Amino acid sequence: MALVNENFLKLKQNYLFAEVAKRADAFKAAHPDKKVISLGIGDVTRPLPQACIEAMHKAVDDMSRPETFKGYGPYRGYDFLCDEIAKNDYKARGVDISTEEIFVSDGAKSDTGNIGDIFSKDNIVAITDPVYPVYMDTNIMEGREIKIIPCGEQSNFAPIPPDFHADLIYLCSPNNPTGSVIKKDLMKAWVDYAIKNEAIILFDAAYERFITEDDVPHSIFEIEGAKSCAIEFRSFSKTAGFTGTRCGYTVVPKGLMAKTADGQKTDLNAMWYRRQSTKYNGTSYIIQRGAAAVYTEEGQKQINESISYYLENARIIREGLSAAGIECSGGINAPYIWVKCPDGMTSWEMFDKLLNETAVVGTPGSGFGEMGEGYFRLTSFGSREDTIEAVERIKNNF
Amino acid sequence: MALVNENFLKLKQNYLFAEVAKRADAFKAAHPDKKVISLGIGDVTRPLPQACIEAMHKAVDDMSRPETFKGYGPYRGYDFLCDEIAKNDYKARGVDISTEEIFVSDGAKSDTGNIGDIFSKDNIVAITDPVYPVYMDTNIMEGREIKIIPCGEQSNFAPIPPDFHADLIYLCSPNNPTGSVIKKDLMKAWVDYAIKNEAIILFDAAYERFITEDDVPHSIFEIEGAKSCAIEFRSFSKTAGFTGTRCGYTVVPKGLMAKTADGQKTDLNAMWYRRQSTKYNGTSYIIQRGAAAVYTEEGQKQINESISYYLENARIIREGLSAAGIECSGGINAPYIWVKCPDGMTSWEMFDKLLNETAVVGTPGSGFGEMGEGYFRLTSFGSREDTIEAVERIKNNF
Repeated sequence: MALVNENFLKLKQNYLFAEVAKRADAFKAAHPDKKVISLGIGDVTRPLPQACIEAMHKAVDDMSRPETFKGYGPYRGYDFLCDEIAKNDYKARGVDISTEEIFVSDGAKSDTGNIGDIFSKDNIVAITDPVYPVYMDTNIMEGREIKIIPCGEQSNFAPIPPDFHADLIYLCSPNNPTGSVIKKDLMKAWVDYAIKNEAIILFDAAYERFITEDDVPHSIFEIEGAKSCAIEFRSFSKTAGFTGTRCGYTVVPKGLMAKTADGQKTDLNAMWYRRQSTKYNGTSYIIQRGAAAVYTEEGQKQINESISYYLENARIIREGLSAAGIECSGGINAPYIWVKCPDGMTSWEMFDKLLNETAVVGTPGSGFGEMGEGYFRLTSFGSREDTIEAVERIKNNF
Repeated sequence: MALVNENFLKLKQNYLFAEVAKRADAFKAAHPDKKVISLGIGDVTRPLPQACIEAMHKAVDDMSRPETFKGYGPYRGYDFLCDEIAKNDYKARGVDISTEEIFVSDGAKSDTGNIGDIFSKDNIVAITDPVYPVYMDTNIMEGREIKIIPCGEQSNFAPIPPDFHADLIYLCSPNNPTGSVIKKDLMKAWVDYAIKNEAIILFDAAYERFITEDDVPHSIFEIEGAKSCAIEFRSFSKTAGFTGTRCGYTVVPKGLMAKTADGQKTDLNAMWYRRQSTKYNGTSYIIQRGAAAVYTEEGQKQINESISYYLENARIIREGLSAAGIECSGGINAPYIWVKCPDGMTSWEMFDKLLNETAVVGTPGSGFGEMGEGYFRLTSFGSREDTIEAVERIKNNF
């Protein structure tokens, strides 16, 4: 009989969001009169920038005429998009990334998941706790040894390079779920660690656009030496509201090397190209046109408005909770606020108290790893009105 | 140092299309006066159906308003699309497939490539020769043992169940590159083989829409017992011109099982759901709306017009070549015509002769596997005018 990949059986069932939905639904059924507000969702709610809308209408029309119709596109993505990425996301920040180093995709989740294809099962993988579950689950699926980097209060929830050796390291800054960041000095320490350990950092910068502080790198490639030890993942999901539109990209520097068991150095850019050209057929032309419009003057103005809106929500939550004596962090360079559950409550106790006493839904931190126990994630992706009301309710009840 | 997946080093560089382009470009440079016609391309050229265009305009507008905006969609795809697939592609042909068995994606290439994630490296894989290279390359990447099923003239280039055992079998009907089909009786023999060998058939039906003959199943699930031994891949690429728009889907029947090394049966539908929800974040809402419009009355009319157009091109090529005494097959249920190189020419000799003497570009059959040597692929995706002219030129020169 055909054999399954047994590593799948080692995966934990991720009941987190299902359980959240179940308890919230039960509460709604019992209290049909109460307005439940969700600050649990990790998804955007504001519509796409008008510049993207217009560009996609035009692209749809291109597909309606033989002379402008587009069939299979370039595997790496269209130059009209890659050129804008190279110019705006990198050159503008003093980082030299060429279009041949950029691979457009349907999103950072696919890329952070699929990147494992080019690496051996024998690498030791380092993953933070708390963590975005994709890094953990994809490496369990592939049967790699995983070591944990605990991220707690002492380091403001940022990951500190460990004493142990790792070959592949997943870092996410600004961080989901904690909203913490890796500042410039710490990022430098990570690049040093990777070079010393001949490791590759898999750097997830999906929330880069929320950075407001100067000493937080937007790209790991702002750090000298990073092009010899890092791959970077970016997304239009949170930058421009593309969670349902689907576009992201991955930067694999030319000359970035890993090796075979007998020490032969192998070019990862060429390997990722081979992976993508074999198992992916490019991102929709229409969607790439939409993503390119993010870089127009109007596009930039419009996404900045949305990001500011979400960051203002984050400020309202953060300051409101602090005023109520509830300890929290994040929300300055990220859409996530990481709340310390008061009075020694567990994450789920906090969830139940919040739901039952204020009709506000959040996400228990323990769902993101053991280190998340005793914490709680709130997000700034709701409407202003709901955010203000939720914070008022919490203030009045805690 | 981080270790690479060394299986990548076993991949052959696929120089086929690069070499085709190189020789065609050299010819064009040497003969700027001659009009070169390509019948080599495996990509559609006719614009998207108007129904899809209108649906995508509407979907783009949905993304511009908060009340209709869509964030993350369902992992399996929206019901508005899955329901149409179940109804039109299956129920209408007497096949009972539920929406929970359908997984919408960005295309059949991704799915036929990624499906390997849920299977053990220890399966024996059977692949036809000639073959669409993705099946071969992805299994080389994953380090599986591959056995070849030669498909030659004796069987009209259709694959016959072999004497050897295999655990996973890739079948493609209508076939790329040969244009051959697996008729009902033969498909039944394959299902019997799979059941006897406790194997899984990975059935690629990307060209299903080109079928014109009654005894050719459109879906492997038309064969009794197939739901216990097959996964099916479908695509809107050739059906509706979506090669650059990107949408396809995969059907994994509920209750389809494979096993662990110690014999524990495991549900593949649940495993593929876990794979997709972990490493994929859904297909763009806009694109899914476009795909759903394929199933409207206008959509069906419009795609039928395009398919008829391509099939008429195929008829012109097939009959023209036959009239010139050149043996060929395919082109009746497929957009591909598989030409036997006359006078014992090799595939590349035929390529050069055709290019130099008629300024027509095709694809050497040897690029699809050893059994393709001595054959040549022509496609019907050109314009009517070019197709007629190319055939005239060939007739006058051979």
